[in-house]
Amino acid sequence: MQMGYRGIYEQYRQLIITGLLKPGDKLPAIRVLAEELKVARKTVESAYAILVGEGYIVSQGARGTRVNPDLKVSAVSSPVEAKVADAGINEILDLRDGSGDLRLGIPALDEFPFKKWLLLSGKAARSLRPEEMTNQPLMGYAPLREALASYLQISRGITCTPEQLFVTNGYRTNIRLILQSLAQHNDKVVMEDPGYFFGQKLLKRIASNLHYSPVNQQGLDTCYFKKHHHDARFVIITPTHQSPLAVSLSLPRKHELLAWASENQGWIVEDDYDGEFHYTRKVIPALKSLDINERVIYIGTFSKTIMPALRIGYIVMPPDTIQRFRETGEIIEAGQPLLPQKILSMFLSEGHFFKHIKRMRTLYQQRREIMLGALHALYSDIFYYELTDGGMHIVAFLRKGVQDVPLAAIWQKHNLQVFPLSSWYSQSQKRYGLVLGYTNIRSEAHAITLLEKPLRETLVLINSAT
Amino acid sequence: MQMGYRGIYEQYRQLIITGLLKPGDKLPAIRVLAEELKVARKTVESAYAILVGEGYIVSQGARGTRVNPDLKVSAVSSPVEAKVADAGINEILDLRDGSGDLRLGIPALDEFPFKKWLLLSGKAARSLRPEEMTNQPLMGYAPLREALASYLQISRGITCTPEQLFVTNGYRTNIRLILQSLAQHNDKVVMEDPGYFFGQKLLKRIASNLHYSPVNQQGLDTCYFKKHHHDARFVIITPTHQSPLAVSLSLPRKHELLAWASENQGWIVEDDYDGEFHYTRKVIPALKSLDINERVIYIGTFSKTIMPALRIGYIVMPPDTIQRFRETGEIIEAGQPLLPQKILSMFLSEGHFFKHIKRMRTLYQQRREIMLGALHALYSDIFYYELTDGGMHIVAFLRKGVQDVPLAAIWQKHNLQVFPLSSWYSQSQKRYGLVLGYTNIRSEAHAITLLEKPLRETLVLINSAT
Repeated sequence: MQMGYRGIYEQYRQLIITGLLKPGDKLPAIRVLAEELKVARKTVESAYAILVGEGYIVSQGARGTRVNPDLKVSAVSSPVEAKVADAGINEILDLRDGSGDLRLGIPALDEFPFKKWLLLSGKAARSLRPEEMTNQPLMGYAPLREALASYLQISRGITCTPEQLFVTNGYRTNIRLILQSLAQHNDKVVMEDPGYFFGQKLLKRIASNLHYSPVNQQGLDTCYFKKHHHDARFVIITPTHQSPLAVSLSLPRKHELLAWASENQGWIVEDDYDGEFHYTRKVIPALKSLDINERVIYIGTFSKTIMPALRIGYIVMPPDTIQRFRETGEIIEAGQPLLPQKILSMFLSEGHFFKHIKRMRTLYQQRREIMLGALHALYSDIFYYELTDGGMHIVAFLRKGVQDVPLAAIWQKHNLQVFPLSSWYSQSQKRYGLVLGYTNIRSEAHAITLLEKPLRETLVLINSAT
Repeated sequence: MQMGYRGIYEQYRQLIITGLLKPGDKLPAIRVLAEELKVARKTVESAYAILVGEGYIVSQGARGTRVNPDLKVSAVSSPVEAKVADAGINEILDLRDGSGDLRLGIPALDEFPFKKWLLLSGKAARSLRPEEMTNQPLMGYAPLREALASYLQISRGITCTPEQLFVTNGYRTNIRLILQSLAQHNDKVVMEDPGYFFGQKLLKRIASNLHYSPVNQQGLDTCYFKKHHHDARFVIITPTHQSPLAVSLSLPRKHELLAWASENQGWIVEDDYDGEFHYTRKVIPALKSLDINERVIYIGTFSKTIMPALRIGYIVMPPDTIQRFRETGEIIEAGQPLLPQKILSMFLSEGHFFKHIKRMRTLYQQRREIMLGALHALYSDIFYYELTDGGMHIVAFLRKGVQDVPLAAIWQKHNLQVFPLSSWYSQSQKRYGLVLGYTNIRSEAHAITLLEKPLRETLVLINSAT
């Protein structure tokens, strides 16, 4: 089925009205879209002409066609409505809120050791003593820092003292605190491309000199990095399971990066967000475990292993940097509440965490198999995979076409909170597909039920491109 | 008793070694110190000469005498020791940590309704449901935002909807989030002088165009402000009880400020840190309650009314700014854990908070009287007061001399965590004294016991200046 100019017009108008394309966003070049949709250039030109006439888009000559930067998508009439009305893609999805299936990075809610957790929570809550009501040490509750140091040694091969740990409320604070403690204004910061969706957004906001380095089958392309970003001061990477491609940084590349950091006084920020979940062979030790020159700043979170609502993350500070983190922290950070730290430290030190992680490792491996089976059954013509050994999500690459943004919008309409892969890219040649979480898939039937919902519309969209 | 050069040398050497004077800090001019200590200039010159000879200080001609900027106070041999060794005044005091008497802004620990709080904490802890494990709404737990809106209406005369509330972990995050959401690079930010010790440190770090406006008996000097900072975009003030002087901003000045903000699209950040505690007449309504044009951003905290370890503060966002706070928040903030928010919302909505505040208001008034009585009994020759009607601290002004920094160091040595008043000033003519908290003074005997500890050394120090 070939699309007419009216269909193209309607599709883009919807994308703009719903906020999936925002004021200032670029539209595909006429030639590219015509090829993609297998229609005559004239057809796309006609659709664009109507959109220009109605003020949705503007043509800026060599700079291409964009959504009208002055467009007010809809009148904001009340604070509550504003939340939806003035929304970009992340606002619409409310990606950080609680609902929806196939979400990324959410632990298996049905298999969480609830009884044990609630028991410890009640115990911790009742253990408050008057002297604990005052400000607690900024870098975290001492027993938690001790339990964390011991956990990191055993599970991730990292040797550090409790004094090297800074307990935070998660990824965003980790990154902010690292840059605010150690970066000079305009220090070059390099991120993986593609890279963590929310990490990109954050760094675009707080790093004034941000660059990207592409990722291939062995993780970050260290050749490219050393050629173009030799002078970087920070490189922020996900070596164990690259986010989102899930590839692991090869050992030679790890050593190349460590050597670069030592020689250039660079800092490697290792984001080990789901390093616990590796299935088909021995768990990969953290890059930090090879870091004899103390150039790696390791960051972790309990959002993936326990629950996001706990809001506990941490930084492993190289010894020489502790004082700088401390000084900056005392000035800009408010610190974490005591009670969640107490609960977590009990859960860790009583051994429940290890048991839990071990169970989840097996469970997630099974659920991934179930998810892949259901995807094969329903979508074998649509997606292909480049499977790796771990993680908490699958990247389903599109076999053809580039329309992963409208595709994700369709899935989201069915309450499947997947991400379009292309939105994780910044400058590198984009790839297209969906990023899906599978940790809460309870059975084959459950997977099929969920995946069937957007099937018809997916086929229509993808086949419109043939 | 006159001090010899050796005594002066020893005193300054100690201040430097212990980190109370930091590398780069300025020493008094020879003439000024000689007058202050009532010694010959030659005596001070001799003391300074030894300090220069030993490398503790450097003379920089017209720029004055400073602690050697290259001075390494002591070799940092381990992370744990580093904490103490490389310390500035705030590091040494560990002002945010839990111990010490006469601390500022700490609620009465002995009179907290512990039983009720622990009961609710246990209940909240056991109420966790699986769907609450995922990310919670960034701006806070909905029932807490509702309870807060109703509390602000009743207690502070502020009309706002739950949608206008952003729950945070306290003062530092409030200020950071406001500037990051609403400020353009280089917007002029004005702070009170003297002003909140930690607020100054924070703003010096995050506001590139920071200015000060003096405070007098009626609060912020609005004449000065309008003359010199008419073009400001933010003014950050403590109108109910100025921090630290505890004066209240007069009603005419409140209206002047509101008019300035409306006419110039300025933002008034109202830090109402202890507005609940006003004793001798009706509680003063918040400045925000007069803000018909929505130019006031109100910030509050439960650190003073419940406990610092809870780490819950909040921002009341003017309706037009909600979307900007939301967008910035989604990018840079990690959000707050659920459990403390649940406990607090129960405590508020079941009416315990109101009862607690009412009891504390009476209690703090009594404890202030006790504290003043003990100060009068022991230190009537040393301090005088300019008493106001509320707050959680007393400013004890020095009758003579400027040595509040060494004086505070003496008190701190006795585990009395008072602040030197002069350290709250930035540019205005400094006043000297101690800022003392009295909320945990349990009896007259308790007050006398604590205040007697530094008595002898205080007399020696102060009399050395006669």
